[in-house]
Amino acid sequence: MIHNASSALLLRQDEAGVTTLTLNHGERFNVLSEEMLTELLSALKTIAQDTQVRVVVLAAAGKAFCAGHDLKQMQANPSQAYYQSLFQQCSKLMLAIQHLPQPVIARVHGIATAAGCQLVAMCDLAVAADSARFAVSGINVGLFCSTPAVALSRNISRKQAMEMLLTGDFMDAQTALQRGLVNRVVPADMLDACITELVDSIISKPMSAISMGKQLFYKQLEMGVEAAYQLAGQTMACNMMETSAQEGVLAFIEKRSPKK
Amino acid sequence: MIHNASSALLLRQDEAGVTTLTLNHGERFNVLSEEMLTELLSALKTIAQDTQVRVVVLAAAGKAFCAGHDLKQMQANPSQAYYQSLFQQCSKLMLAIQHLPQPVIARVHGIATAAGCQLVAMCDLAVAADSARFAVSGINVGLFCSTPAVALSRNISRKQAMEMLLTGDFMDAQTALQRGLVNRVVPADMLDACITELVDSIISKPMSAISMGKQLFYKQLEMGVEAAYQLAGQTMACNMMETSAQEGVLAFIEKRSPKK
Amino acid sequence: MIHNASSALLLRQDEAGVTTLTLNHGERFNVLSEEMLTELLSALKTIAQDTQVRVVVLAAAGKAFCAGHDLKQMQANPSQAYYQSLFQQCSKLMLAIQHLPQPVIARVHGIATAAGCQLVAMCDLAVAADSARFAVSGINVGLFCSTPAVALSRNISRKQAMEMLLTGDFMDAQTALQRGLVNRVVPADMLDACITELVDSIISKPMSAISMGKQLFYKQLEMGVEAAYQLAGQTMACNMMETSAQEGVLAFIEKRSPKK
Repeated sequence: MIHNASSALLLRQDEAGVTTLTLNHGERFNVLSEEMLTELLSALKTIAQDTQVRVVVLAAAGKAFCAGHDLKQMQANPSQAYYQSLFQQCSKLMLAIQHLPQPVIARVHGIATAAGCQLVAMCDLAVAADSARFAVSGINVGLFCSTPAVALSRNISRKQAMEMLLTGDFMDAQTALQRGLVNRVVPADMLDACITELVDSIISKPMSAISMGKQLFYKQLEMGVEAAYQLAGQTMACNMMETSAQEGVLAFIEKRSPKK
Repeated sequence: MIHNASSALLLRQDEAGVTTLTLNHGERFNVLSEEMLTELLSALKTIAQDTQVRVVVLAAAGKAFCAGHDLKQMQANPSQAYYQSLFQQCSKLMLAIQHLPQPVIARVHGIATAAGCQLVAMCDLAVAADSARFAVSGINVGLFCSTPAVALSRNISRKQAMEMLLTGDFMDAQTALQRGLVNRVVPADMLDACITELVDSIISKPMSAISMGKQLFYKQLEMGVEAAYQLAGQTMACNMMETSAQEGVLAFIEKRSPKK
Repeated sequence: MIHNASSALLLRQDEAGVTTLTLNHGERFNVLSEEMLTELLSALKTIAQDTQVRVVVLAAAGKAFCAGHDLKQMQANPSQAYYQSLFQQCSKLMLAIQHLPQPVIARVHGIATAAGCQLVAMCDLAVAADSARFAVSGINVGLFCSTPAVALSRNISRKQAMEMLLTGDFMDAQTALQRGLVNRVVPADMLDACITELVDSIISKPMSAISMGKQLFYKQLEMGVEAAYQLAGQTMACNMMETSAQEGVLAFIEKRSPKK
């Protein structure tokens, strides 16, 4: 059931409904080069169509989780058109995570900086090793992390985000947990067990309800509360008409396990 | 000064400006059946017109606070039109709490799940017993808590909300406090004393200022900051023209208690 | 390098790129009288054009940080037109802080109440003495803090903000830190050292990146995520074309310090 993608940059492993995408450029701290962005976008596009995939785990090999954009590549292409296209492609990736039908869990074992921190912020859930650290450190080279700010400011309070953006300083894993950037912090050797627990919980639920719900969740966040309720009510009525929900509710009433 | 509504499903008790509405269907965990929703909406409609009511406490009898929708009733009415109408009625209730001129305090003594958790999230304030627990557990029967998500995601961070929605897991009272879903957590036998303290503080303030302020608060949350300031400034100028504010300010300057 | 503004109400001190504005009406708890608002607006207007200023610290003399509006002055001018114009001027000040190219750090050594608490909420960063306390206490004189609510509800969770607005109760510095209203809490005698540390970190970064980023940060907060990413990407591409960013990135690649 395990197969690796052709590219060495990004590994894909499939097992029992869980697809693990592993950033595999550890010697360069898994920078989001053009090639890495292309691989990631392509993998997510394929996964979006793959009904066998129920949950995605975004992991990384090597010491760091992800150090953000590839500064060498950027330095070699000094035109505004290039940068604009690069950031557009990166934003497309970030939105693809949010638009993916399946939940995406970040597995953050090391540092996540700049667009790497943004990746964590855009995932639906995130589990971090207690040694992981987060920064939006572009400002240290004179580049304010504007696109990471979009994601970060939707995860933590504005003053906390602003401090990180202005200083470039690191935030430790426990602080990230308290502020809401990550869901769980565990010792590094417990990362996989912790993610398995989350995955198992999600995978036991009907995929259609999860997909419908995830899509609704991000849409309603951008609406006024009345419009949000209207859309949520419609979504929930659709959800309730699904066979799996009808059976789930009946099983609950009859105090038995639902038939799959 | 105490009177009960005719319905056994919902009790109303009035005492010195405080109206306590008690969900009174403990043997069914105070589910939000059609009948319960109708009773609640009707009670709030009456209270909105009642200038004697200064604060509303939303409480519940029995072991649970509220277990959300009535799954038996939903299972007996398997049509999308029924579900849509049901969720619409429930959303109407949730918005009625927010539109009510009086502040509403949830008194959460037991579990609050699905639309029960949503009820807590929609109240202006919430006090919980340390044994209370919160979940948006619809996903456990295949029904993603989309309408509760609207309220929950406006109270706690998106990753924290998403985890609860995807897993259906419980959040304990202390965690709910840290995340901002509830204002105070106390031992169960201190619940009433804690609520009395909040109520007394609010009741000593002019009702018109409270109503104007509550209405402004939720409106401005949905506006850009400039429009929000414009509306808030207008509201505050109106508020300042009230006799109670003029007397309050004068009393403050003259270092005396305001005349009521 | 140090010069004071002509007004005794507001002091301006400039040193090595840091401008400290000090509310200097301690005997009246630095109330935001018409005169103080005018001084502050005028100072910010000047600073916005002053490329020598890299960071602004907003401090206060006397026991309190700022007690909000001048109730005596308000009581002496009992017309709705006056109040509306007053709150409009105050909102103009609050927005001027957000629109200022330079980051503004609140130095909160004492109580910050009503529009004083709002001032702290509107600054980009805030450092508080452990003895500082925060309240939106207008409701105690019958005046709901509607304009402060705009700022406060964009800093802390809605139930936490609502409790403060309805009760007028104080929040201590540690709680303000946990909730995200302030960035750091230190003993009073460490305030200046703590602010210097933040200032030094910010001042070592290119001003243009900081200004571009600050402006983008508040704009994108009011946009949907897709529009936010589009604007952020454009901003970051502009930022990357700056000489300072090109040099910063090159220095990073070449593992050396950037030339200034």
